[in-house]
Amino acid sequence: MDYQPRTADAWFLIDRVLQLPARLSGLNAHAEVDADLMRQVLDESAKFVADVIAPLNRVGDEQGASWDQGRVIMPPGFREAYQAFWQAGWPALACDPADGGQGLPTVLEATLYEMLSAANHGWTMAPGLLHGAYECIKHHASPELRALYLDKVASGEWLATMCLTEPHAGSDLGLVRTRAKPLPDGRYALNGSKIFISGGEHDLTDNIVHLVLARLPEAPPGPKGLSLFLVPKIDPQGQRSAVHCDRIEEKMGLHGSPTCAMRFDDAVGWLVGEPGKGLGAMFLMMNAARLHVALQGIGLLDAAWQKADAYAHERRQMRAPMAHRQGHEADLIIEHPAVRRLLDTQRAWIDAGRWLAYRTALELDRAKHAPDEAARASAQRWCALATPVLKSLFTQQAFEGASQCLQVLGGHGYVREWGIEQHVRDARVTMIYEGTNEIQAIDLLLRKVLPDGGQGLQALMQEELNALPEADRALEQRAQVWAELTHQIAQRREPAHLPYELADDYLRGLGLWMLQLAWCHIDAHRGEWPDGEQARWGQASSALQRWVLPEWHLRVQILRDTLARHPLSHPEHA
Amino acid sequence: MDYQPRTADAWFLIDRVLQLPARLSGLNAHAEVDADLMRQVLDESAKFVADVIAPLNRVGDEQGASWDQGRVIMPPGFREAYQAFWQAGWPALACDPADGGQGLPTVLEATLYEMLSAANHGWTMAPGLLHGAYECIKHHASPELRALYLDKVASGEWLATMCLTEPHAGSDLGLVRTRAKPLPDGRYALNGSKIFISGGEHDLTDNIVHLVLARLPEAPPGPKGLSLFLVPKIDPQGQRSAVHCDRIEEKMGLHGSPTCAMRFDDAVGWLVGEPGKGLGAMFLMMNAARLHVALQGIGLLDAAWQKADAYAHERRQMRAPMAHRQGHEADLIIEHPAVRRLLDTQRAWIDAGRWLAYRTALELDRAKHAPDEAARASAQRWCALATPVLKSLFTQQAFEGASQCLQVLGGHGYVREWGIEQHVRDARVTMIYEGTNEIQAIDLLLRKVLPDGGQGLQALMQEELNALPEADRALEQRAQVWAELTHQIAQRREPAHLPYELADDYLRGLGLWMLQLAWCHIDAHRGEWPDGEQARWGQASSALQRWVLPEWHLRVQILRDTLARHPLSHPEHA
Repeated sequence: MDYQPRTADAWFLIDRVLQLPARLSGLNAHAEVDADLMRQVLDESAKFVADVIAPLNRVGDEQGASWDQGRVIMPPGFREAYQAFWQAGWPALACDPADGGQGLPTVLEATLYEMLSAANHGWTMAPGLLHGAYECIKHHASPELRALYLDKVASGEWLATMCLTEPHAGSDLGLVRTRAKPLPDGRYALNGSKIFISGGEHDLTDNIVHLVLARLPEAPPGPKGLSLFLVPKIDPQGQRSAVHCDRIEEKMGLHGSPTCAMRFDDAVGWLVGEPGKGLGAMFLMMNAARLHVALQGIGLLDAAWQKADAYAHERRQMRAPMAHRQGHEADLIIEHPAVRRLLDTQRAWIDAGRWLAYRTALELDRAKHAPDEAARASAQRWCALATPVLKSLFTQQAFEGASQCLQVLGGHGYVREWGIEQHVRDARVTMIYEGTNEIQAIDLLLRKVLPDGGQGLQALMQEELNALPEADRALEQRAQVWAELTHQIAQRREPAHLPYELADDYLRGLGLWMLQLAWCHIDAHRGEWPDGEQARWGQASSALQRWVLPEWHLRVQILRDTLARHPLSHPEHA
Repeated sequence: MDYQPRTADAWFLIDRVLQLPARLSGLNAHAEVDADLMRQVLDESAKFVADVIAPLNRVGDEQGASWDQGRVIMPPGFREAYQAFWQAGWPALACDPADGGQGLPTVLEATLYEMLSAANHGWTMAPGLLHGAYECIKHHASPELRALYLDKVASGEWLATMCLTEPHAGSDLGLVRTRAKPLPDGRYALNGSKIFISGGEHDLTDNIVHLVLARLPEAPPGPKGLSLFLVPKIDPQGQRSAVHCDRIEEKMGLHGSPTCAMRFDDAVGWLVGEPGKGLGAMFLMMNAARLHVALQGIGLLDAAWQKADAYAHERRQMRAPMAHRQGHEADLIIEHPAVRRLLDTQRAWIDAGRWLAYRTALELDRAKHAPDEAARASAQRWCALATPVLKSLFTQQAFEGASQCLQVLGGHGYVREWGIEQHVRDARVTMIYEGTNEIQAIDLLLRKVLPDGGQGLQALMQEELNALPEADRALEQRAQVWAELTHQIAQRREPAHLPYELADDYLRGLGLWMLQLAWCHIDAHRGEWPDGEQARWGQASSALQRWVLPEWHLRVQILRDTLARHPLSHPEHA
């Protein structure tokens, strides 16, 4: 059973709950946008995903990408699908019209990639890197380099990579050793080895644009010595560069995406941006990239949920305690409370995830296009704080929730036939790449929250409480608890490892507050839940309250217990 | 890196904490057992596992079992390893000396299978079914049938299967449709299709003994119409029976174990036990079989922990907040709090799991061999109540904890090289087979706890509190909370689905109490923690308190909230 995009749920969140058409049309860049146009793009993208991409998921997993003497052969159908994809203009959806893009709101790119990831995570890895490369070249490359590469990357005619990781440098890019030697013509010759390069080599496009972190001669050690370079697979003269794919990895899943070991052997390229500012140039698009990974998680969880929900409405086993018996020798397993709980709980996660991700897509647009600076700053604050939370929360739930969906199928979930075990295997990597979930937690607490003593986060929470359609006492109380906890953490300067110990629970607790926030908005629109869908939304809402949110207390308790191990030497009475 | 059994930890729990040599020698059947003998068997089994079985794990996963026109070819080396295994007497370790066994305590079989599963889960599936088949034939087969098959199954010269599941009958065996037709010679001709039959066909042994659930003519529908039959692959005249393997499944993992679709096509066999008592005969050995699955979970988690621990002591990334810097450009990742927490937490689970599993192995022996009936009843009560808890708890932790261990390796965990992703894939099935974890929860609450109003469980908890080496106030208080909760559940006769809704959290909460119990015993022996190992035990103990046990409050809260949704119509003031 292939994944089937169902746009009604997403559209309900976009149009009714988040009211994005109205809010986006308030931005100059999107003044032309209206609900009809957005709905039309959403439905067309869903159709493309269903017709072209979803049917290639199984072959991508079973046949996978293969390596042959430096060439990478993609699974059957992948190239044709990709050619159709870029020629239909999908990669350029949210790119600037000045660069040949369509200038549509980021949320439509978000729904597109959510559906693509649900339908075929492996295939989607290839275009998934385009947006970051586009932004990187647009904002950092010289005019000459932009003239050569920006249009091709915006349109997706050429795919791109991010060459960061090296065998000894993963989470810690400061250890990167690849070297760039200046050439007399102003270009650079790169030497070094990179690993885990998604789409480092393939046959989807005629050229590949590599963005590579490397060190100039005499660059200082650590992250400040890193510069960014652009190395094309085929140079402007049509010659093959000295970039070699030495192997692709055997992985747990994601077999449709070649994970390449790349060797740069005096490969010639250009500096992008300023020397020593390579990491900064890459991190500029980190929020968009991490939102993208969160969307992968939401999509994969939705795909797994679809399969489990379909199975639960077809499989009969045993008598359920409250089922309506109709002449069958057993009841549908959806009638069994344990199955109902598993499915409704995932629904609660998916719906909240969509609200939060689409909301973040709005804020990415507002951060760029909002007319006044205060609005842009508020949008930027949301993006900075919400992004690591969403990346961590929804990639973990994609894996664990897809595993729960697998459980609904019992032994049939463990065999390949229904395709659900592939989602579990594919989802696992999302907890690792674009910064492991532990790195997200450190990013949130140590780099985003603590530097201003938690004031930014507190302002965000207050703004969200003020904007609720209905006041919510529980959410307010939890915001107070959170402010107090954050204050206590900020007060403690020692021991140095304390915030690192707290980071994972801190992210998780804040994430649960955000889930609750999302459902406050969805619940406030319960009068508009579509006919025939009342039960579906209501059950997910109830599942959130009963089985998801209680974890908040657990996280608070762990945080408090850890803080209590390190009492303040000079206690303040806050 | 192959799994390396480390018997010192297990032995510390067996000898010092549980004092099994002394307690076992109090049973007549094990009067000859002493610590030296037990340690010797433990170490020999570890050596066999390390030398013969562990090196075959990777090939079992990568090459796997294959099917060719009804034959199943096992991965290279599997047959030779199995022949060495049975010829060395390992399958007969705990079998009755009267049947050619060695009559050793069950705990030595437990440690053997824990290590085997850690080393090579796929290979271990084959002998893993022997014990149940042995007990089944021993206690239910006619003397003629026993004469033909008991010795061969006890020794493991012939392997055995359990043919239960059918395409439409998984958790609900009452739906089984395979039919058995009496033949004039007193035997039966079986017709039907079975799926998910582990080891239904293979080349490890010269014969395979199938135990098959089927229906006699005019048997009533449902579970009471099921009888048990023995159908050999090769009949006593040396003829191939009409049992066919039509295919093997493609699975998420466990590729070293062929999961067979079997067709019985007038296959001739014998009735085992009484007509209509087939399910009872199979369920007799359920406690031992489910303990076995819990041990698989513990073993797989230990195997994953070993790999992650080794990696964390070798990989350097970033500066850790409290590390001792010694001229390296980055610190060992074991110094990072998030990594330390992941690893120590798994250690806390593994140690508690071992204590609980070895303790259950003792109780299985006491249930058979204790001199007085009260002791046998108490042992039987432990087995009945603890077994579903351990099966569910440690299979879930095997999967989730192995995934956490994978996280320690980052991208290197997601690729096949380190072998840790195989453990995650292999472990996933343990949450499903031998009764899904949701079935375990229903078994615990609805079949074990509620029928006597919770009195048996309360007696068990009180007995455990009385037997603690040091009184533990927290454990006592939680036992009181649990008794009260159980009382409230038992009071409610309606709605009928209520206990089904509570079952999963009930099992989990009780499981956490049992983890705490296990660590009370381990902590009470802290003075005996081996030199150089103090930190290792202490960190695991601390991880339990900080990061595992807080979940107990979460479960209590969910149970209470669910009970509050269904107030008693005639409240009693208990």
